[in-house]
Amino acid sequence: MKLVIVGGVAGGASAATRARRLCEDAEIVLFERGPDVSFANCGLPYFIGGEIAQRSKLLVTSPALLRDRFRLDVRTRCTVEAIDRRAKTVRVTDLNSGRRFDESYDALVLAPGATPLRPSIPGADRPEVLTLRSLDDLDRIMARVEAGAKRAIVVGAGFIGLELAENFMKRGLETTVVEHQPQVLPRLDPEMAAPIVDELRAKRVAVFLSDSAMAIRNATAGVTVDLASGTSLNADLVILGVGVRPESGLAAAAGLEIGPFGGVCVSDQMQTSDPSIWAVGDAIEVRDVVSGAMGHVPLAGPANRQGRIAADSIVRGASPLAARFRGVQGSSIVGVFGRVAASTGASAKQLARQGIRHRSVYVHPANHATYYPGAQPMTLKLTFDPDSGRVLGAQAIGGAGVDKRIDIIAVAIQAGMTVFDLEQLELCYAPQFGSAKDPVNMAGFVAAGLVRGDHPQADMADMLDGPPDDRSILLDVRTAEEFEMGHLPTAVNIPVDELRDRLDELPRDRRLLVYCQVGMRGYIATRILLQKGFDVANLGGGYKTYLLVQAAAGRRDRESP
Amino acid sequence: MKLVIVGGVAGGASAATRARRLCEDAEIVLFERGPDVSFANCGLPYFIGGEIAQRSKLLVTSPALLRDRFRLDVRTRCTVEAIDRRAKTVRVTDLNSGRRFDESYDALVLAPGATPLRPSIPGADRPEVLTLRSLDDLDRIMARVEAGAKRAIVVGAGFIGLELAENFMKRGLETTVVEHQPQVLPRLDPEMAAPIVDELRAKRVAVFLSDSAMAIRNATAGVTVDLASGTSLNADLVILGVGVRPESGLAAAAGLEIGPFGGVCVSDQMQTSDPSIWAVGDAIEVRDVVSGAMGHVPLAGPANRQGRIAADSIVRGASPLAARFRGVQGSSIVGVFGRVAASTGASAKQLARQGIRHRSVYVHPANHATYYPGAQPMTLKLTFDPDSGRVLGAQAIGGAGVDKRIDIIAVAIQAGMTVFDLEQLELCYAPQFGSAKDPVNMAGFVAAGLVRGDHPQADMADMLDGPPDDRSILLDVRTAEEFEMGHLPTAVNIPVDELRDRLDELPRDRRLLVYCQVGMRGYIATRILLQKGFDVANLGGGYKTYLLVQAAAGRRDRESP
Repeated sequence: MKLVIVGGVAGGASAATRARRLCEDAEIVLFERGPDVSFANCGLPYFIGGEIAQRSKLLVTSPALLRDRFRLDVRTRCTVEAIDRRAKTVRVTDLNSGRRFDESYDALVLAPGATPLRPSIPGADRPEVLTLRSLDDLDRIMARVEAGAKRAIVVGAGFIGLELAENFMKRGLETTVVEHQPQVLPRLDPEMAAPIVDELRAKRVAVFLSDSAMAIRNATAGVTVDLASGTSLNADLVILGVGVRPESGLAAAAGLEIGPFGGVCVSDQMQTSDPSIWAVGDAIEVRDVVSGAMGHVPLAGPANRQGRIAADSIVRGASPLAARFRGVQGSSIVGVFGRVAASTGASAKQLARQGIRHRSVYVHPANHATYYPGAQPMTLKLTFDPDSGRVLGAQAIGGAGVDKRIDIIAVAIQAGMTVFDLEQLELCYAPQFGSAKDPVNMAGFVAAGLVRGDHPQADMADMLDGPPDDRSILLDVRTAEEFEMGHLPTAVNIPVDELRDRLDELPRDRRLLVYCQVGMRGYIATRILLQKGFDVANLGGGYKTYLLVQAAAGRRDRESP
Repeated sequence: MKLVIVGGVAGGASAATRARRLCEDAEIVLFERGPDVSFANCGLPYFIGGEIAQRSKLLVTSPALLRDRFRLDVRTRCTVEAIDRRAKTVRVTDLNSGRRFDESYDALVLAPGATPLRPSIPGADRPEVLTLRSLDDLDRIMARVEAGAKRAIVVGAGFIGLELAENFMKRGLETTVVEHQPQVLPRLDPEMAAPIVDELRAKRVAVFLSDSAMAIRNATAGVTVDLASGTSLNADLVILGVGVRPESGLAAAAGLEIGPFGGVCVSDQMQTSDPSIWAVGDAIEVRDVVSGAMGHVPLAGPANRQGRIAADSIVRGASPLAARFRGVQGSSIVGVFGRVAASTGASAKQLARQGIRHRSVYVHPANHATYYPGAQPMTLKLTFDPDSGRVLGAQAIGGAGVDKRIDIIAVAIQAGMTVFDLEQLELCYAPQFGSAKDPVNMAGFVAAGLVRGDHPQADMADMLDGPPDDRSILLDVRTAEEFEMGHLPTAVNIPVDELRDRLDELPRDRRLLVYCQVGMRGYIATRILLQKGFDVANLGGGYKTYLLVQAAAGRRDRESP
């Protein structure tokens, strides 16, 4: 059996080594257009900032090791330009020698990855305008930095854009981020991304939201970037981080089925529409675990697993021993100046777009017992089906422990768990690691209470202009001191501990919208009022959530201190 | 409805506040024999060491807050001495006034907790011999420390024993740990606990294993503790941390059903054999999620959940809205001098004792991508059903990230997942948080390979005296340099990268037991040899696992450098 693999990074390298372990006698040829195989593309930004000090650390393995340990025929700097499906050959150009040749295959794995998008604006092809995907890209950026670049503009505020912004700052460059959406980190809901904007600005990164680069032109030194808003920015270096598109050109030219998002269509064994060709990694479309919808979700973890699954399929066929791909849930994380944002499953805005019923709750716990020093606050947003309680997604921002909570919920989503299951999860507890009621349990309590109908909830997002209708009254149940520090427009204040004695101050013909700082006292007050016959709902997540939605709406300065 | 609750810490306080939220009109009386409610018992050791600087931090809430916010009738320093089930009253003594009185109930919740065991040895009742369970206990220990105690002996090396040892050292006391088992942390398998012994000794804690305190007698200064081994140790302070027994005396005297482990028997709604009485927390027996066996597992997280469930049951009866308890899986964690040990589900030794079929695999990954600075090594042991692949338990030792991996597997166990599910988990990845193939995925890969029959595995524990039989040969596939640094007795060395060219050096009529450093190269070599027709098994976990089992067997000095 002769296996040919196109692309030698995450998915391709995984497919090659797994195939070798499963099949000692196969001939395995790996073509990689770049000079390196299996490099650490997720580490590239950190070399710019100096966190990773040696470039060699980014080389996870070497062609030599792959040859010696796995008997792979590794050919770097070789591009595959065409597939002849009838002859079962690929047309290859060896960039070292310029030689062109045909290579035959019994099975072919396509793992070419994705290409950074370049917006079609004037000047996007200037030498100061770069992308970051490969070590070659990194070298080009570093050459400009070392030649004295002082000002960087990052276009696009996704994961790589923000990691680049942090690392340019660490390198001493004046850094600007431009994002066409009104928020950073588009995978997150806007209010969950808002604290990252604050963090960037606090670290003196300039951030332009709802704005776009329209042209890049020559300047006395470097380039000038003209934004849609009319602002013009000067820079020595512009990095485009506006997304990637699947590298499916080779597959499309060979007549393989391509999906609506431009990625190669594959089965759950990574098989394309040609039964002798498999495709993995950033070049394919995948099914979303939560919504069932297809999409393009370029992530390293799934790419690695897809490579293994393709090898299983090639060697083992439809045997039950061969693993199958279960789709992608988009578990992802980014650290920016020590702040952490992570998510898994669907966001509320994505579900709204897809017309899928959902509710969300917010909790604002500490990462571990607050009586133990060093506890760090986090905000955890849990999104679920309001009927069944099935967990649909989660997002968290904070510092330490954010990764753990999102990974816990990632497993829960994979298992099809409900918010009632989250209530009951038994997690490790010692005061330096967690709480007897872990943040995930807390989110489960709040969400399960909502699904059970224990406490009606209303959304802070609807309160930016005060109560949403004339019938409703905002009731702040925090202390007078907290109320004085900042509160919702028109809110009245009755501390929860006085509530039972002051019920006669509240109207019975109006709707009471209750809130506290994080949602807990509001919940207690809601339960009291509900049982006393009032029409009441708790504004889940409390004043902390209000500040988030306010920041996301760009209303920060109007009401809060 | 009148609810009386006996005990105001984790389970009792949770039951009381949940009952109030569910039922505004109930009369709720909370009796607590101590002066404090809802204190942070898991934090007590850290006050001794100074990590928690203010004693007031240990008071999670106050009787005043419980009265104001939850309208609870909190009576501290009141002991409940008897239950009259027919009259539905409890007999109470108010320790403040000495007054005795009866209090009626409609529903009664017993949350008295557990009592530290005191071995019946001479001198165990001396004033220098203390336990640590309450703030009173803490004050007694602190009084002796502040009076100049310089030497502490901790009897028992469970969680609290080791946390105490760390904190006595931090406080400057010369500290000795005595444990009657041949290992510390009895919930773990011995080889997983061995590195903690190393850590304790490296920090100059004296550790006596397989030894017991037989008598405690007067000394010129302080006391002398005579050990079974013949050693005598002097100390100013002896702390007994040999375990707890459920405080089920009140329940037993009232004729409630008591289980074989001495705990109160309850339903999945925490109801005792008397339908008007519930019991929660460390006083009860619980079902083990993995084995289905009953036992006594005192943990704070389950106690809190049980309190909530009892309140649900009391207010909502058998309604589907009332949560039910799912049993305990023993998720637990301890930090000792920066080392972390955690586990969830069953240990291998527990399953062996219960006669439950199981296999275990070891992986030794870093907590995050090794190309990013600061990666810390961990050892993760995954235990599973060798037929179905169902995950039965996991244990991990290391530093950062141990808590996350055990919590992830805790959810997997709760969901009934298999090792095939662990392979496919999609977890968050950025280089400072994890790896594209997370340690949990890695453990899943190894275990799934075993269940699928991809790579026969043998156990390092059987190799302490070299190959277990004359037919077997130990084959070390690491580099010559690694081999020279230490290897298994009688092993021969052929590096994996040379293996295919040196197959003729290997006998075909013997069994080859292959190993490397952590198991990965051994796996590759096993796959090569298997496909080439050799009789072969991989010694899972490699030389690092060998060092662990060797340390646990007390053979450290014989073979390794």
